[in-house]
Amino acid sequence: MKIDSIDFFYLSMPEVLDIGDGSQDALLVRVTANGHTGWGECEAAPLPSIASLICPMSHSACKPVAASVLGQTLDSPQDIVRINRLVRQNSMDLLQADHTLSGIDTALWDLLGKCCDQPVYRLLGYERACSKTPYASVLFGDTPQKTLEKARGIRAQGFRAAKFGWGAFGQRSVQDDADLVVAAREGLGQEAILCVDAGTVWGEDVDAARARLKVLQDCRVTWLEEPFHTGALSAYRTLAAESGPVRLAGGEGSHTEYMAQAMIDYGGLGFVQIDVGRVGGITAAKRVADYAAAKGVTFVNHTFTSHLALSASLQPYAGLRDYVLCEYPVELKPLAYEMTVEHLSPDADGTLQLPERPGLGLTPDTDALQKYLVDVQITVQGKILYRTPRF
Amino acid sequence: MKIDSIDFFYLSMPEVLDIGDGSQDALLVRVTANGHTGWGECEAAPLPSIASLICPMSHSACKPVAASVLGQTLDSPQDIVRINRLVRQNSMDLLQADHTLSGIDTALWDLLGKCCDQPVYRLLGYERACSKTPYASVLFGDTPQKTLEKARGIRAQGFRAAKFGWGAFGQRSVQDDADLVVAAREGLGQEAILCVDAGTVWGEDVDAARARLKVLQDCRVTWLEEPFHTGALSAYRTLAAESGPVRLAGGEGSHTEYMAQAMIDYGGLGFVQIDVGRVGGITAAKRVADYAAAKGVTFVNHTFTSHLALSASLQPYAGLRDYVLCEYPVELKPLAYEMTVEHLSPDADGTLQLPERPGLGLTPDTDALQKYLVDVQITVQGKILYRTPRF
Repeated sequence: MKIDSIDFFYLSMPEVLDIGDGSQDALLVRVTANGHTGWGECEAAPLPSIASLICPMSHSACKPVAASVLGQTLDSPQDIVRINRLVRQNSMDLLQADHTLSGIDTALWDLLGKCCDQPVYRLLGYERACSKTPYASVLFGDTPQKTLEKARGIRAQGFRAAKFGWGAFGQRSVQDDADLVVAAREGLGQEAILCVDAGTVWGEDVDAARARLKVLQDCRVTWLEEPFHTGALSAYRTLAAESGPVRLAGGEGSHTEYMAQAMIDYGGLGFVQIDVGRVGGITAAKRVADYAAAKGVTFVNHTFTSHLALSASLQPYAGLRDYVLCEYPVELKPLAYEMTVEHLSPDADGTLQLPERPGLGLTPDTDALQKYLVDVQITVQGKILYRTPRF
Repeated sequence: MKIDSIDFFYLSMPEVLDIGDGSQDALLVRVTANGHTGWGECEAAPLPSIASLICPMSHSACKPVAASVLGQTLDSPQDIVRINRLVRQNSMDLLQADHTLSGIDTALWDLLGKCCDQPVYRLLGYERACSKTPYASVLFGDTPQKTLEKARGIRAQGFRAAKFGWGAFGQRSVQDDADLVVAAREGLGQEAILCVDAGTVWGEDVDAARARLKVLQDCRVTWLEEPFHTGALSAYRTLAAESGPVRLAGGEGSHTEYMAQAMIDYGGLGFVQIDVGRVGGITAAKRVADYAAAKGVTFVNHTFTSHLALSASLQPYAGLRDYVLCEYPVELKPLAYEMTVEHLSPDADGTLQLPERPGLGLTPDTDALQKYLVDVQITVQGKILYRTPRF
C-alpha cells in the first residue's frame, strides 16, 4: 500500500504553566494508507514541528518532512526503516525534522501493526512483551513536606518505584536539595526504588552535581538523572566515576541514535533514557535498545505525556526481560489522560503490561480531544500550507 | 541597553532547485536595542525557525526563543553569553531553537560591535584578524569533464585551494567517483589544495568510504569531508585510522558545542567544520575554536551562503593564525550575493581579510533584498503570531 495522508493535530490545555510538565500540550499524528489509520505522537513543540512538515524546500538536504513520507510504499517493517532513512537524508539540515519524524515513524508502526493484526513489539522481533515495573514519575514538591506527602501518596497507590525531579531541586542550596531527597525517601519507605531527576540544572558544572552525591548515596537513590545537558559527555563521565552506587541516567534529549550511542559509549551512563517521540520514533529507539543491551547499559523509556506515547515508548524494549523499570507519568494533565480511550494501568502487584492488541493497542479519543484542538493556519506567499485538520 | 525587537526575514530565490546548494533561500535576522541594529543569519529552514521564535510555550523548558531574548540587558559580551545560555535552558526541548538562536546570537555580536565601534573578533579577544586562504567551495560537475572545467576556472580566478562536493559523488561506482576526483585534481593543477566533500552520502557505511580512499590519497586530497552523518563517531574513527594523509573533516551538523566536541574527541577528525548559523552562533563557535585549538584539531568555517554569514563564520577563529584555510562559496545564487552591500573578496595573492569595520563589517542591502522577501503569516487561535516584517 501507499501512504495517502499525514495529519498533525496540535492539542493544548487552555492554560500552559511555566513548570516542567510536558503533558500540557501535544502533537498527535495521524497517518493513513489504503484505508488503514495509524497514530503517533511527537514529543515536541507543536508549531515548529508542523512547520517542518510542510515548509518549502530550502535545498536537496533541507526538504519538508512530508516530502519523504507521502506516497511511499508501506508493506513491511523494512519500509518503515527505509522511510526513516529517507527523512533523515532529505531533511538533514532541518533540525526540527527529527522530532517530527518521531511521531510519524510511530504512527507507521501502529498502522502496520493494525494491518498485520500484530502488536508493534512483535513486528520488532519480540516474541512477547515482558511486564515492567513502572516508576511513578513526578515533580518534586515545592517543600520537603509536600514532597513527603507526594511520596506517601505514591506508595499508597501501590507503586514500587518513584522518580522525583525538577521543581526547586538543584536551584537552591545543597542542604535544601538534601531535605527534598530525604523527604522523598522517607515518604516512599525504605523498600521502594527512588530516582532523582535534576533536569540538566547544572549545565556542565560537575562540582555542583558532586556536592549532592552524598545525600543521594545516603538515601540509596538508584539513579541521578540529567545532572548535565545531553551530550556534555565529559561532565557525565567525570561524575559517573565518582558516583558509586548512584548510577547516572540520561539521554532523553537524543534526537538521533548516534547521540544516544555517544552517551552510552562516553558518558558513563548506567541507564539510557530514550523518548520515542524525539529520537526518530520506534525505529531509532529499537536500535538504541539493541545497542544498550550489547554495551550493558540499561534502556529505559522517557515518557511524560499520554498513554499513546507510553505504549510507543515501551515497544522498543518490550521483550528485554532484564530491563524492568519503566517511566510512568502520574501527574498527567487532562489533555494527556484523555488522549486515549484505553489506558495502561499497573496491576495490583505494581507491574505494567503492554496490550496484546494490534499496533500500539490504544485508540485516540477524538471526541474528547476536540476541545483541546488548537486552530492554526500557516500561509506562505498567499498559499495556505497548513490548516488544522478535522478528526 | 535592553533588547527591543527581533525580526526574521525569510528570503528565497523565485525557484528553489533540488540540489545541494544552500544559498537558494535565507533567514536574515535583525535585532535592535536602544536605536542600534545588529544583523545575523540562521543557516536553517526559514519557516520552522520562524515558528520556533514565536510559538506558544509548551512547558518551562520548551519556550519560544524570543521569550529569552526580548527585554534582556545587552551591554557586554558576557550579556550575550548569558542570553545564549538562557535560550538553551528555556528552549531545551525545542529542537529547532539552536538554529534560531544562531542567527540571533550573531546579530547580538554585530550590534554590540557597532555600539563599541569594534569588529566582533576584537570583542572575542583577538588582537587582530589574521588573513585566511579561502578555498573555492563548489559542487562537483555532473561529469568529469565538467568538473575539470570548473577546476580550471577556479585556478584561473587565483584560488590556491578548492573543495568539490555533493552532486554525483558517492552515488555511483567507485570508478565514477575516482574519475571525478582525478578531474578535479587535473583542472586545479598539482600545487593547489584539493578537498572533497561527500555530504554524508555513506551514512555510516565505512566500507563504501574505504573504497574511495585510494584515489583520494593518489590525488593528494587534504581532507575528505562528511563521509558519514554528523555524530556517527564510530564510523568516523574507524575510517580516520585508515585514511593516512587524507584527514577527515566534519562537524557542520553540530548544533551545540557538545556535538562538535564529541566529533573532536571521538571522531578522529583532522578538521572540525563549524557553521556559526547552526551551532549556537558566534558564542558557541568561539568555544569550539578554543576547544579545537587545545586538542590540536584544525578549526574551519562552514559557509555556503551570504557574505554576512561568511564574516560571522570567520570571527570565531579570526585570530588563530595557524588555522589558515577558510570556506569561500563561489557559486552563490543572486539572493546570497546581493544580501550585503559590501563583499569579502580574496586579494590578488589569494588571501582573505576580515573587514576592520565595527561588528561584522557588512551592511545588508535591504533594497536589493526586497524582491526576495517571502510573505508569511502564522495564526494560532485566531491571533497572528507572525507576519513578515518590513525592512
